[in-house]
This record gives sequence, C-alpha cells and structure tokens, in this order.
Amino acid sequence: MPDFPRKANFASDNVSGASPEIVAALIAAAEGGAMPYGADDWTARLEAKCAEIFETDVAVFPVVTGTAANALALAALTPPHGAIYCHPGSHAYADECGAPEFYSGGAKMVTVDGDNGKIAAGDLAAMLADARPHGVHNVRPAALTISQASEAGTVYSPDGLAALAEVAHGHGMGVHMDGARFANALVYQGLSPADATWRCGVYVLSFGATKNGALAAEAVIFFRPELAGEFGERRKRGGHLLSKQRFISAQLEAYLSGGLWLANARAANRAAARLAEGLAALDGARLVHPVEANEVFTALPEPVVEALEGNGFGFYRMGGGPDDGSDGGVVIRLVASFNTTDADVDAFLAAASA
Amino acid sequence: MPDFPRKANFASDNVSGASPEIVAALIAAAEGGAMPYGADDWTARLEAKCAEIFETDVAVFPVVTGTAANALALAALTPPHGAIYCHPGSHAYADECGAPEFYSGGAKMVTVDGDNGKIAAGDLAAMLADARPHGVHNVRPAALTISQASEAGTVYSPDGLAALAEVAHGHGMGVHMDGARFANALVYQGLSPADATWRCGVYVLSFGATKNGALAAEAVIFFRPELAGEFGERRKRGGHLLSKQRFISAQLEAYLSGGLWLANARAANRAAARLAEGLAALDGARLVHPVEANEVFTALPEPVVEALEGNGFGFYRMGGGPDDGSDGGVVIRLVASFNTTDADVDAFLAAASA
Amino acid sequence: MPDFPRKANFASDNVSGASPEIVAALIAAAEGGAMPYGADDWTARLEAKCAEIFETDVAVFPVVTGTAANALALAALTPPHGAIYCHPGSHAYADECGAPEFYSGGAKMVTVDGDNGKIAAGDLAAMLADARPHGVHNVRPAALTISQASEAGTVYSPDGLAALAEVAHGHGMGVHMDGARFANALVYQGLSPADATWRCGVYVLSFGATKNGALAAEAVIFFRPELAGEFGERRKRGGHLLSKQRFISAQLEAYLSGGLWLANARAANRAAARLAEGLAALDGARLVHPVEANEVFTALPEPVVEALEGNGFGFYRMGGGPDDGSDGGVVIRLVASFNTTDADVDAFLAAASA
Amino acid sequence: MPDFPRKANFASDNVSGASPEIVAALIAAAEGGAMPYGADDWTARLEAKCAEIFETDVAVFPVVTGTAANALALAALTPPHGAIYCHPGSHAYADECGAPEFYSGGAKMVTVDGDNGKIAAGDLAAMLADARPHGVHNVRPAALTISQASEAGTVYSPDGLAALAEVAHGHGMGVHMDGARFANALVYQGLSPADATWRCGVYVLSFGATKNGALAAEAVIFFRPELAGEFGERRKRGGHLLSKQRFISAQLEAYLSGGLWLANARAANRAAARLAEGLAALDGARLVHPVEANEVFTALPEPVVEALEGNGFGFYRMGGGPDDGSDGGVVIRLVASFNTTDADVDAFLAAASA
Repeated sequence: MPDFPRKANFASDNVSGASPEIVAALIAAAEGGAMPYGADDWTARLEAKCAEIFETDVAVFPVVTGTAANALALAALTPPHGAIYCHPGSHAYADECGAPEFYSGGAKMVTVDGDNGKIAAGDLAAMLADARPHGVHNVRPAALTISQASEAGTVYSPDGLAALAEVAHGHGMGVHMDGARFANALVYQGLSPADATWRCGVYVLSFGATKNGALAAEAVIFFRPELAGEFGERRKRGGHLLSKQRFISAQLEAYLSGGLWLANARAANRAAARLAEGLAALDGARLVHPVEANEVFTALPEPVVEALEGNGFGFYRMGGGPDDGSDGGVVIRLVASFNTTDADVDAFLAAASA
Repeated sequence: MPDFPRKANFASDNVSGASPEIVAALIAAAEGGAMPYGADDWTARLEAKCAEIFETDVAVFPVVTGTAANALALAALTPPHGAIYCHPGSHAYADECGAPEFYSGGAKMVTVDGDNGKIAAGDLAAMLADARPHGVHNVRPAALTISQASEAGTVYSPDGLAALAEVAHGHGMGVHMDGARFANALVYQGLSPADATWRCGVYVLSFGATKNGALAAEAVIFFRPELAGEFGERRKRGGHLLSKQRFISAQLEAYLSGGLWLANARAANRAAARLAEGLAALDGARLVHPVEANEVFTALPEPVVEALEGNGFGFYRMGGGPDDGSDGGVVIRLVASFNTTDADVDAFLAAASA
Repeated sequence: MPDFPRKANFASDNVSGASPEIVAALIAAAEGGAMPYGADDWTARLEAKCAEIFETDVAVFPVVTGTAANALALAALTPPHGAIYCHPGSHAYADECGAPEFYSGGAKMVTVDGDNGKIAAGDLAAMLADARPHGVHNVRPAALTISQASEAGTVYSPDGLAALAEVAHGHGMGVHMDGARFANALVYQGLSPADATWRCGVYVLSFGATKNGALAAEAVIFFRPELAGEFGERRKRGGHLLSKQRFISAQLEAYLSGGLWLANARAANRAAARLAEGLAALDGARLVHPVEANEVFTALPEPVVEALEGNGFGFYRMGGGPDDGSDGGVVIRLVASFNTTDADVDAFLAAASA
Repeated sequence: MPDFPRKANFASDNVSGASPEIVAALIAAAEGGAMPYGADDWTARLEAKCAEIFETDVAVFPVVTGTAANALALAALTPPHGAIYCHPGSHAYADECGAPEFYSGGAKMVTVDGDNGKIAAGDLAAMLADARPHGVHNVRPAALTISQASEAGTVYSPDGLAALAEVAHGHGMGVHMDGARFANALVYQGLSPADATWRCGVYVLSFGATKNGALAAEAVIFFRPELAGEFGERRKRGGHLLSKQRFISAQLEAYLSGGLWLANARAANRAAARLAEGLAALDGARLVHPVEANEVFTALPEPVVEALEGNGFGFYRMGGGPDDGSDGGVVIRLVASFNTTDADVDAFLAAASA
C-alpha cells in the first residue's frame, strides 16, 4: 500500500484521526477500574442510549471492526447451509476475506447486482422465485445484507429498503444492514434512526463509528433481541469480547452524545458534496455514481490522475478501466472524513484542474 | 457478574485502568491521519522494536484480545484434523468458548493435566507415545500450547519449557505460548525475552499487554515467520485486522518503551508477593499454588470469604470446595495489577485477619 | 495395517463379508429403476419398519458409515459453541479424526472417564455441576453421547442409561447413542428396541448394520423428529445423501426383516462368550472387561500373543502395556462377527493354550 | 419429488439400476472377509488399474457420492480463505447444498458464467486479472472446477480445457474436474483418459461411476499425488472412509474392467443422440444446448410437456420460462442411461409428437 503524505488524504475515511470528544471519553475511562467483559457502566449507558435513539428494545454488542460486526451479525441470521444475498460490490462480499463464510460455518454468498451499488427489490425477488428447486440440494436463502450507505456512496430510500425487506421476509429471510457509514446515510436521508432501520424491516445493524471519528468502535445492534440468543457465545468465540470493553463503549457513548455522530457525518457529506460540485464543473471529469453520502467516484483522464498522485493526494484507483463506461478515463474513489476541510477539497480540485 | 466497588479489586488484572504512558501514546496517535490496516508508522516501529527485544526476525500481528491472539496463533499451527495439547485449566481450553476449535476449523483440544497449572514433559511424552494408533482415524498432534505465566499463577522454568518443546518438536508439533501474563513471568524468571521464548523452542507467542496496563492490545509474534504465511488472511477473515491499527500499535509501542512493560509487571508481582506473604502468616489461610507471578490462590474459611465480599473486596471464588484439598476452606483467586498499591493489599489482609 | 490371512480374523466385525439375505436384497434392488435421493419404495418401507420396531414416530436417515451417522447426529444436537460429553475411549472421540468437531462447526468434546468403557451418571453430574462458571466464556454443554455396546464390549443397563439421560436432560442436553453395535447390546439386554433407547431418554441413535452383516448401511434415527429439521441439509452438505439411496435402504430393510439383525447379533455374542469362557479357563490369560456383547479384551503373555500373530490369527493389540493392570501381559481385542464359527473360536483357543 | 412410473424415466441417470457385471462383483466381494478401511485386495487392484488407465502415478480415494468427491477434492486445493471459480450452473455450486464451502472451511465460490454450461478461458482470465486488489482483504483464487461433461450436457474440447487450466495455473490455482459424467464426455471426445485430464492440466478428478451403472461408487483421483497428503484425514473426518471399502472398490474395478465404463457411456450417449435427432425433427421442439453426452435439453410447448408428464414419462422441468430463449416453451431435461433402450426413446418421441 502506498504511503501517502498527510496532506489531503481521500483514500478512506479510516485514514483520519479521532474526534477530540471521543479521545476525551477514552482518557476519562482509563482513569479508574471497572468490571470486565461489558459488566461496566459505560456499556450499560450505551445500551440505554441505543434503545432511546432507536426508540425500541435493542440488544447491543460492541466490537472493534466492521468486518466482525458484519460477519457475526450475518452468522446470527444464517445457518451453515444458508445463503446470504448481497450486492457483488458490498464490503461483506468483496473485502472481508470470507469473514461471513467463516462465521456462519460456510454459508454461501449469492450476489445480486444492481446499479450504483444498490440491489433492486425486483431483482432480488426474481432470484428468490425459484431458489430451492431441489430442496435440500440447494442452500436455503437465509439473509439479505444491504450496505447503507452503499459501497458506491449511494443511499437506499426508505421505500426501496422496505421493498427489499418485504421480499426478504416473504422468503423467511432476515435483513442485515451494514452501517459502516450509517450516519452518513442517515443525515442524507433526514430520517430518524428508527425510520431508517427497523421500521423498514431491518433486523440487525452493523453500526459503525470507526470511519466517522472513533478509534475503533462498532456495535452490532439487534432490533429483534430474540435473534441475539447465542450472539454472546459467538462473539466470545470469535475473540471479539474485549476484557476492557468499556473502552469501546466509552467511544460509542461519546459518539452518540450531543449529536457528535450526526455532526461528523454532516461534515463529511458536505466535503464530499463540495468535491462533487467541483468535479462536475471540471472538463474531462465525470461523476460515476450519485454523490449522496461521503464518497465520490469520478473518472478522470489518466494524466490528471497521475499528477494528483504525484502531488501527494491520497485516493484509490478502482480498477475498472475503459470498459466500465468511463470514456477512457480512470475511475478513482475519494472519501471525505469528518475532519476534511474545505481547504483539503479546494486543494484537490485546484490540482485536478491544473 | 457482581458489580464490586472500586476499592481493592483483585478480581482480575483486566479490571484496572490503563498506564498513563499508554494513554498518552493513544492521544498522540489520534491527532493525525495514517494509512489504514497496519500501513502506518506505529506498526512499523512496533515490528522493529519486537525484533530488537526478541533478538530475532519476527512477524508481528497486533490484535485486541488474548482469545483472538491464541486462537489465530493455534490455527496457524494446526489443521482442522489436528490436535492441540493443552492444560485443562488453560484459558484457551477452558475460557475461550471454543475459539481455538473455531479458528482451526474444528481441531481437537487434548488435555494434559499437571500440578499448579503446568504440564510436565514426561506426561506429554506419555500421551504422545501412541497418539495415532489407527493413522487417519486419529487426529494428528499438531500443537502444544502452554501458558506463561500459567492460569495458576506459576511460571515454567526455561528447562521445563525446553523439555516440553523438545517432546512436541519430536512429534512434529509446533509450540505456542499464551503470554497473556508474559511480562509477569519474565520478570519472575529474570531472563531475556529471547531466552524465555524461542530459545526454549517456542514458535509463536500471544504477547499480552491488556492485563498489564494497555487498554486493549495484544500481539501475535511469530519467531518462525515462515509459519505466518497465511496469517494475514486468517486475521482479516476473523475480523481482527483493524482499519486504524495504529491505535493498537501505539499502545504496544508505548508498552515496550522505557521498560514500562517490565516495570508494570514487577509492580503487580510485588503486590502479589505481599499478599502471599500476608496470607501465609494468617491463621486458617493456605496458599494453594506457589505465587510466582501476579496471581494468588488461597483457601480461606467460608465466613472470612463472605466477610471480605461483604466488605466490597473484588475477587473470584474458584468453585472447587472441600474435595480440592482445601481443608474445608474456599479457594479464591486474587490478581494484582500494575497499579495495585500496598494500601490495597494491606487493607485486604487486615480485613482477612479481622 | 497388517494383512492377516483369512483364517479366524478377530480384528474387527468389519472384516467379515455380508449376510446372504442382505446381498440378495441388493441384487433385487439393482434390477429396476427408482427415483433418487430417497424418494423410493425401499426407503419408505424402511421408515415404516423403523417406526414399528421402535414403537414411535421416527425420522430415519440412511448413511454409509458410523462416523457419518455419529457426527451428523451430534451436529443436530450441538451448536458450534457447544460441548459434547463422551467417554475418552468412545469411537466418536478417539477414532473418527474429529468428525464430530467438523460437522458441528467446531464443538468441544469433553471426556468423562469411567470403568469398562462406560460413563457413570454421578461422574457426569459432577462435571456438569459447574460447567459454565463464566457464562459465554465457556462452551455450553449440549450433548451426551454414549456407545451401546461400549468400545470395551460392555453394555449399559437401562437404569444406568436412564440415570445418565436424566442428568443430561437436566442440563438441557440431548442424548445420542452410538449404536454401531446396537443389536449386540440389545440381545444381551433382552429388551425391546424402544425400552433400550427412547424410553431411557435417548433422542437420536446411530443405528449400525455394517458391523453386523451389511455391506455399508447405517441409519440415523431420531426419536424426537422435531430435532431433525435441518438434518436433510446437513446430510446433503456432508455428501451423505446417496442418489441411489435405495441400495442402503434395501440393506437395512433386509437387516430388519425376519429378525436377521437379532439373529446375527446373537451369533456374534455367542462366539464372543465362547471365546471368553475358553480364555477364562486358560492359565496366564485374564479378561480385562466383562464380555457382554461381541468383543473380548484379554491380557495374554507376550510370547503367546506373538505366537498367535505368527499363526495368522487376526486381532489388534490395544497399546497399554504393563501399567494398565495387565500384569505384564499384552491386552488384545478379539471381535466376533455374525459368521464367526465355533471352529474359529476353538482354533484360536487351542493356539492360545498351546 | 414426484414418483414417476418406471416406464421411460429420463429424470436422471441415477434412476437406473446397476450393471449386472457390477452387481456380480459385489456378490463375489461379499463372500469372504477382508481387512477394513481400504487395506484390501480390491482397493489395491483398483489403484493399479487407475494408474494404468491414466498412464501416470495417481492417488485414488473411493467414496460413495459425487458431492463427497467434489467437496473433498476442492478442499484439498483450497484454504478456508480461498476462492473456487466455477460455472453458476455447476453441480458443485448449485446442487450440493454448500458442500464445497463446508469441506473447505468456508471458501467462497465465485461464479463465471458461460454458454452451454461451459466457462471460457477469456472470461476466467478477465475475472482473475484483478482478483485481489486489496490483498488480505480479498479471498485468494485457489481452485477452478469444471464439469466434464457439463451440467448442460456439453463437453469441453481438450484445447478449451487446456486454455482454462493455463489461466488457472498462471494464477497459482489448482484445477479440479467434476467427472460425474466423465465417461460420457470421454467417449464423445474419443480421447485417452490421460489426454482428457492431466495432460490438459487437471490436478484432481471426481471420477463418477454411480450415474453410469454402479450402485454407489466414485473415486477422487489425484494426478498430482503430492496434493493428497492430508486427504486421508479429510475423508475420514467427513465420514467417507468406509470400513468395508472393498464394496466400493469392487464396483469400480468391475466398472473399469473389459471396457464396461466406456460401453455403458456409449450406450447412454447413443440414446441421447437418438432423442436429440427425434426432437430436432419435431415441430415446436427446440434443442437448447448441443447434445454431446447423455443429456438433452429441449424446449417444448407447455401442453406437450403436460401430456408427457400425464403419460408417465420421467424428466425435470428446468425452471427458466420464456426469458431463457425458449420462445414461450418449457425447457425440460432428458437424461439417458446406460440401459435406456431404443424403445424408451421412441416411445417418448411418439408421445411428444402426438
């Protein structure tokens, strides 16, 4: 992996530091002792706060990575002989080295392609129409996982999500949301957390904070706590029950306090929108997906991309190449963070138009 | 789990806070950005420091729990049809909810009992003498895991360890050391890290810091880096590759700097020794195991134990009961931490002798 | 593995050929066609016959090996984070290369030792008394598996079995019986199949026929059919759903018809009893376990054992050696089959006393 | 599953009985005893015969199902974090309830679509060009599995196969051939077994006999025996090592003797060709794939299909529907067996044209 200079790094929202409020919470939590494995005050407060924010009973399990959150959550929905339906570009399918297969005991991930990183309810329904023609010879559709925001930086509408969930439920499947960028999607939608999740049919959420200002903090949140019956064992067995769990819970508590999570997400989305606006106005640049959260996918001429790299800007090339509709350009991904500044954005745009 | 008051909590070394030096390192690391997934300066420095401290080439993989470190390390040594030899009281066998079985794809853990939490080389040799009488019908002995310090708070001598490793190697097995309390064992032994590990035949070490002053930081250290070929994939697949890995590496770097790890361990061992000395002088108390690291197992009369609990001291009862040789007393475990004070110890002793 | 001559082979009951009645059934089944995967008349008749013989509703799944039957049955009772309690000498623990761990997704097999290959209810109860002191940190006791007849050739009494089952049920565990030699146990007991199984608390039985006259035929029989909900998928996924399943079902149907299974078992038990009687009368010989089914464990002087081997008799040495209470003798195992003749037995006894 | 009458059953080649020569071999093998678990003469002769027929050193492992053969073979090539590339219509992907995922410990099956059930080398190469853009975040391409004959009844040319293998080898992947209908493909090609397999780059073959006249007999054949190092353990652990293995080996020996396997395959292919010829001449019928082995896929008007079903002919509808290019017709699959007669075929054609 190239080692980019620190200036204007759009490689990912995980290249940023941490929010001062979250660091402060960590410092405070480090001062005294506490009972281990979640029997601490921070965790208790976090659980109460999640129930309040999501307006329903929830079971909350802090973990340290999105991969752990996704794989553990999917394993709670899927038997070893089950199938997990997902977008081929989803992180769980493409970028977790088979973690869902590992945690589920060998389930099959079945891909449902769709534009802009999203699955359409009709496509899912078509694939499920005859999913088990031979009974026990075929894996059983068990879970649908959708990413909100998607890997393409787009956001499902509540109607789109509800339609998907209805199809899934109709086939006896659970619905999981990979919310590594849940806050970014939420502020784009302007919905309440409840309206954006369980009221649309989501059973379990990977609630991410790491990409949005935490050091390492995610939570698996069950809106149907009865599905979490064996989750404690699964988490422990996966090595994801921290003895000093308060240090994750404290991060999450700070994240959810005073609207920090939403403020951070708004800042990131705003920076992405500024980037998108600038690129849209740029000759030779093209936006590949609608920019709805904090990610921008743009096609730029190869020489421009090389110059930006040479200049020390951080971002990833997305493979692809001419045949992905990029008109001979190179598709790159730019991710804005909670602490991306206007100056970062403007420096990038200036360099890109030079 | 009972919620003990904050005063004199000997329940575990994971009930303590964190060393100020480690918190400070975390604050510093949170300030800027860095490339994700270990492509950061903290991780690079950590790797160099481990090589220096252990005086050999090593492959180092930070993770956040000892369970993850153990299970991932054992999976690197053991095929699904392999056997892992371990003490029945070992954490990996008894307290990780089957994590080694999970990560290895279903290996069998075979217990070798022994006094004071330790395995004797002769007992291991006897069990291995005819381990595969029926060839493919029997699992293949693949790994030996020993805990240093042991779950009983005792420490293997380098000779004892080398004898065990020789038996294991002679049967084609790898040797893993669960070093959740490695620093405590090391300062007891007064050995160099190299002499205490790979020079005794250890292939891979779960190097713990969480119990000794870190917030959540462990490292899997391979002294035979060629065994780590697929470890990166295994760690990612288990959800243990942190995007902001620098926040673990920074903890470990601070832990290893200026001798902090050894100083913390010395303080904890000293407190345990003070406890042991006091208990040895106490009528009706009996030490169950030699006190060599930071754990004290003592049998006390039931009324005394109840009084201590009522007083708000934190510790665990060890099950057992009369038939464990405790003369009708109750065996309790007291664990001293890096920040246990003489006052903590003396308060406990005073209450116990009241 | 040594290649014994064909004369008087007591190495195992799987060295024998097949009952003519079973071969005849196979020939008949091979004549016409049939729908695959169990949708055939032989399977339907087998299911009806099992319900009749066991006097209850059953779910029946033919497979081809005892290992498959055991591992699949145990996986139906045990989650990945579960524990399977078993005798250390049991086939499932010692001789199936970790099949139960594989099929269960990594469960832990916990051994409960006991005399003569059997587990005592009190010992099981003692081990379960504090099996999960740390909750999710400990695997959950999920299944008890007992072998009937045991690997030591002994037979649980119905009371002994019921007492074990009561302990297991009291801890929320299912009970599995490895009946590789179920018929041998049954004719020894003189009980009805129902009284010997589910009326004693057994939930699922590995019903063996291969060792008792079939070519390759076992059945997993659930006495609680509701536990078999996902068994079809598990069996298929393990590669144990035969397309031409009628060829197993036909063997089992013939096996259960006209009392063939019981007659075969009686013949084998009778031959074992004749062996035992002869050995008991032999100077220098000692029976190691009570002979209750079709296996004889005897200690003989090394020179006698060598002479028997040199003579071409087939049997296995059991490892062990002097320290197993064999008074310097060598423990060997002799297994009688459905077609072992008096002449086979007498030839062996004559050679042993020569 | 519907229960078709016995007349003219084209539902699958597994609905047929067994070749008399194979039944005779089984009867002979059942007469005497033999050492268990493959230490028998039948297995030894089978191994020699396979080496002779394939003109190279091979490691041969008899099993009873094609699913077991495929999953075990793929697990020998693929680590848990590996990817298996396959056609979406392949049996291993679509009809084995996740057996490859199970046996490999959770590998990912990645589909490469292609016409007529076959994968094109160029398509595979394109997918592999950037298969691990993020290193350990992505599963490692480990195996290619192709079906010969394919699920669409078509046959890869040796050049096509060699091109695929070259791509796979170039990416460090092993090549597996699902040869459930290998004999049918071979007689179509008119090649030697060696030219059709390892000389084209195949490492391991699931060699099927069940669909072509055996009762239940398959063999995993490694052309690179060094890849079979742990196969014995894997097979045992999966419950696929039969104690009386001679009963599979005897079937395979008879199958390979006197050219029975090729004669059976020729008969089945001939019957399929006769079916295809008749259907091609039929108004309203259309062949969906080239008929190269023993399977015929044809689109017929719904009323014709219903009439055939009503008449008692056995076959499967293939789902699909109008949008699969069937012009509003229904696609059905007809499979000819080694003992399908001209009369069977002509009866079907007469009924279809009525």
